[in-house]
Amino acid sequence: MKHNYLKNVPLAEAKAILSDRLNAVGFSADTQTVSVTDACGRVIKDAAYARICSPHYNASAMDGVAVKAQSTFGAGERTPVTLAPGDYAVVDTGDPIPEGFDAVIMVEDLIETGEGRLQIISAVYPWQNVRQVGEDICMGDMIAPSFTTLTPSLCGALLAGGITEIEVIKKPVVGVIPTGDEIVPPTDDPRKGDVIEFNSTVFKGMLGSFGAETRIYPITPDDKELIAAAVEKALSECDVVLVSAGSSAGRDDYTSEIIDSLGTLLVHGIAIKPGKPAVLGVISGKPVIGVPGYPVSAIVIMDEIVGDVVSMYYGKARPEKETVKATLAKKIVSSLKYTEYVRVSLGRIGGRISASPLARGAGVITSFTRADGVLIVPQDREGVEAGEEVGIILNRPLHEIENTLIITGSHDPLIDEVSDRLAKNGAPFRVCSTHVGSMGAIYAVRDGLAHMGGIHLLDTETGEYNKSYIKKHIPGDSAVAVKGVGRVQGLMVRKGNPLGIRSFSDIRNARYVNRQRGAGTRILCDHLLKKYGISPDEIEGYDNEEFTHTAVAALIAAGNADVGLGIYSAAKMYDLDFIPVCNETYEFLICRKYLEDPMVRAFLEVLYSDGFKARLNEMGGYSEG
Amino acid sequence: MKHNYLKNVPLAEAKAILSDRLNAVGFSADTQTVSVTDACGRVIKDAAYARICSPHYNASAMDGVAVKAQSTFGAGERTPVTLAPGDYAVVDTGDPIPEGFDAVIMVEDLIETGEGRLQIISAVYPWQNVRQVGEDICMGDMIAPSFTTLTPSLCGALLAGGITEIEVIKKPVVGVIPTGDEIVPPTDDPRKGDVIEFNSTVFKGMLGSFGAETRIYPITPDDKELIAAAVEKALSECDVVLVSAGSSAGRDDYTSEIIDSLGTLLVHGIAIKPGKPAVLGVISGKPVIGVPGYPVSAIVIMDEIVGDVVSMYYGKARPEKETVKATLAKKIVSSLKYTEYVRVSLGRIGGRISASPLARGAGVITSFTRADGVLIVPQDREGVEAGEEVGIILNRPLHEIENTLIITGSHDPLIDEVSDRLAKNGAPFRVCSTHVGSMGAIYAVRDGLAHMGGIHLLDTETGEYNKSYIKKHIPGDSAVAVKGVGRVQGLMVRKGNPLGIRSFSDIRNARYVNRQRGAGTRILCDHLLKKYGISPDEIEGYDNEEFTHTAVAALIAAGNADVGLGIYSAAKMYDLDFIPVCNETYEFLICRKYLEDPMVRAFLEVLYSDGFKARLNEMGGYSEG
Repeated sequence: MKHNYLKNVPLAEAKAILSDRLNAVGFSADTQTVSVTDACGRVIKDAAYARICSPHYNASAMDGVAVKAQSTFGAGERTPVTLAPGDYAVVDTGDPIPEGFDAVIMVEDLIETGEGRLQIISAVYPWQNVRQVGEDICMGDMIAPSFTTLTPSLCGALLAGGITEIEVIKKPVVGVIPTGDEIVPPTDDPRKGDVIEFNSTVFKGMLGSFGAETRIYPITPDDKELIAAAVEKALSECDVVLVSAGSSAGRDDYTSEIIDSLGTLLVHGIAIKPGKPAVLGVISGKPVIGVPGYPVSAIVIMDEIVGDVVSMYYGKARPEKETVKATLAKKIVSSLKYTEYVRVSLGRIGGRISASPLARGAGVITSFTRADGVLIVPQDREGVEAGEEVGIILNRPLHEIENTLIITGSHDPLIDEVSDRLAKNGAPFRVCSTHVGSMGAIYAVRDGLAHMGGIHLLDTETGEYNKSYIKKHIPGDSAVAVKGVGRVQGLMVRKGNPLGIRSFSDIRNARYVNRQRGAGTRILCDHLLKKYGISPDEIEGYDNEEFTHTAVAALIAAGNADVGLGIYSAAKMYDLDFIPVCNETYEFLICRKYLEDPMVRAFLEVLYSDGFKARLNEMGGYSEG
Repeated sequence: MKHNYLKNVPLAEAKAILSDRLNAVGFSADTQTVSVTDACGRVIKDAAYARICSPHYNASAMDGVAVKAQSTFGAGERTPVTLAPGDYAVVDTGDPIPEGFDAVIMVEDLIETGEGRLQIISAVYPWQNVRQVGEDICMGDMIAPSFTTLTPSLCGALLAGGITEIEVIKKPVVGVIPTGDEIVPPTDDPRKGDVIEFNSTVFKGMLGSFGAETRIYPITPDDKELIAAAVEKALSECDVVLVSAGSSAGRDDYTSEIIDSLGTLLVHGIAIKPGKPAVLGVISGKPVIGVPGYPVSAIVIMDEIVGDVVSMYYGKARPEKETVKATLAKKIVSSLKYTEYVRVSLGRIGGRISASPLARGAGVITSFTRADGVLIVPQDREGVEAGEEVGIILNRPLHEIENTLIITGSHDPLIDEVSDRLAKNGAPFRVCSTHVGSMGAIYAVRDGLAHMGGIHLLDTETGEYNKSYIKKHIPGDSAVAVKGVGRVQGLMVRKGNPLGIRSFSDIRNARYVNRQRGAGTRILCDHLLKKYGISPDEIEGYDNEEFTHTAVAALIAAGNADVGLGIYSAAKMYDLDFIPVCNETYEFLICRKYLEDPMVRAFLEVLYSDGFKARLNEMGGYSEG
């Protein structure tokens, strides 16, 4: 088993090595001439100077008559002036002012007195109601400096200034070579071991936002010669080449060797997490980047390295990313070995913006789809404390983050279903829901980190749900539980119940999959263990924790576990057998001051609507809360 | 002369009338199915649920060997465990965990002891280093609710969840019909009276940003039948039709009549400025909008009305516009007759953001190209006082506005030239320069509204430039003048000097074009008038004020005036004759606390560079400052 080790080059150093080299080899943009009518969004190469004035002639600014201003002097209510035919010319807005005239009287100010005579009762001054030559743009004026990105109105100004064609930076073509024996094109029916190739689609979207075009090459197996040939072909057709996956130091990771043999290997391994196994090199004057296969690592490398490469091509400073100050909701531990990129969800609750770290696994693409922003923890810090104010790079506009209903707590698919109905109804806000269990809801609502959260907390002494927990943990009367749904909890087992599980005590003889600490379902599990006198040590898989009902169901369906507690709708989704254990009260804990918040109201209105009850019936296992 | 009058419907009412009608006729989107690999940026119609788990099998998270976790229990430094062939299987990252195994040991933690035996000195727990089924996405989970705009990472998540095709909202096709006898396609050589058709290009760019496609129809002359035929053709091919120009109430404005005869005319005339002469109607269930011909009015109607129409088509709430709080730098007077849209430039100087109103003419497209934002003055307000805090809708990202060197003061083309060099050098900031004359520079720098400004203020008593003005107006030592350039001021006259102007006193016999009050050149003019004993009343055109040297030159070249004061480079640009009057000292007044600001330093470095001196020589009329 061959194994090499990666270097651990600090990010800034890696960037400097690459940009120095690219500058040295003269990496830069080609240009092309395009019609200004098609140039919106393009970057111009040189400053654009107006070729003509706009207006390019003296134009009437009104519908009316052109006159010699002097001929109107002295006109007043008591001293009207009459213009004879020849003293004026009828003009519409935009018409040229005929020779000899220098002002316009508005049609509203004219009194027709017959035989073509017009009476006026106020004078005009020279050039009044005339758009003089160059009022908007003067010939020779710089309309836009070099490297300006053309906006719609700038395109208009260029055309107004007589510029019909313009030299723009040709968009760089970035070739993407997906590699790997296990990689297959997108499918809904992959075989075991097949890895669906979706990184190139993510790259295409990101490259588009950088201003680059993407050419995706066929999937190339883990064969050094084949990958080298693909790189050489891509180099002949593209400005930048990305080799997707194979950038680490495993048996089948050839990117660094290929770059080393065809050109100059600059960096292999960057001190960032995720994103470490990246390769930076230059072949034939063009950057060749080995991008890690894990999607989250890949996105970080795309953003930090490939985005910079595209900017270098354009010769333009990279636009700064929008950031916001936020209060970190949960402690982050980080390593001195890396600069770490932590995806966070953001919420503005009562004035302050809080940032909650999301899952940190490099394979979890959903941590990026859910991320409102990224917190960069510098290499020289071991972590960030909860409550600390931090700068967050925004992934979506701030006003979108501010118009977000934040639901943090127990998982139930109904939350997504309500969100979907809200979206369908055109609600002017989005819902961000995070699954941290019922106790998580209690803390998040109490600490002002969420508007509301789902809870189903069984008081094992009274048999009542939620009340005693709220009394214990929520100070004063600052949050209240409102009606949600009733739902059935039960044991989920594979179809046909192969182990013949009948009641909770039977889990002793099976591989169990548990929920995380603080989840209402975990509390139920622990209560049942106690009731049946079972010690957690007796349960195989007690420490195997998942965060959602569907995740538990998925593991049972896959055979990783035999049994787990969950709600009926999850069992139904995975075609599992379901042994009901209890009916529970799933409520929403809502911060009192947000009870009348329009987002909260809209959420509850959908939840309580008849249409939604029909949807709950479809999902199964729900009753009136 | 036929003349109708427009109605003056408040904007909110006009919007409600249109949206009620469009709802009533069932105006809404078509959909289409696209490959997820091509779906980035598209809006999905329905919620997307994962069809498979991701990972869809138990995958090794590391390069190493798969084992049964139980077989490693008890392994320690003093109690190593040896795995025989058959106890393990070699796996790379992403490989499926073979049947019977449930954990992975990293390659780094293995010691080969020969004959295929591997020694380990620490145990693994079940599912350690394994990405279990559904770790990222569980089958049945909602990946995105209805109407989500797909980001690159969402496309990745959809593919990971086994979704290869998806139903998205078909982009609406918006037909644009440019109308007008005087309208010509873009050219650099228009005849007098020709109006260059650039609005459709502006619309295309804006429509693209709204998520619509644009189909531009040929220019149609002011003929009711021809325009009606064009509207009917466009209606048969598009989802929305815009008739560009002809929306007012003049002789040749047919849009409202055509809508009235083919469908339902809803609104003609909206109480906004600019943008009043707009027409809203519905024909065959599709919106038909008459957009005013003046570009600024057109942009306001596009933004307020057509943007809403596209959102209605999508059935999605329109994204809120980003706003910022700013202090108004100059009083605005507005009318109770209109909601007024005032374009402003924004600058952050020392913590606070100030907004300076730009030119308000409806024909001035450059007021939009220069605008950083828009201030909406509600209909019920007569204006806004200087110093008032106002909300500004941003036209560019806030961080771009914050990275802006603000130069406010006397006009000289060299400022644009320096900006261009900075852009070419990849400077990470932009320059915003406003021409308000030398006295404007004094006030702007004094009041913290600009980092710096050009000044050339002649002290008529001492003959010295700038010093006495700074002493008088700048408190303490808070701003200093730094070296700029020397430049020649003179009289500009048409080529061949047809009126035989020799010295300043000759302007008595010519039509003069002046500069605005507060301009250094205006102060020079007034000084010379005094010196020669000429009263301003004697000068025809003394009240004809322009804001730049090029604007003065353009009017002389066009024949609107015979003579004006200006710098040599402007005369040269317009091929005018130039009679030198004096050499002046053009300096930059800089707020002392910004003397070391990196943007200010970078500006001066370029200005003082040898390369730039060569450029000044090309422009002509400059000397060492």
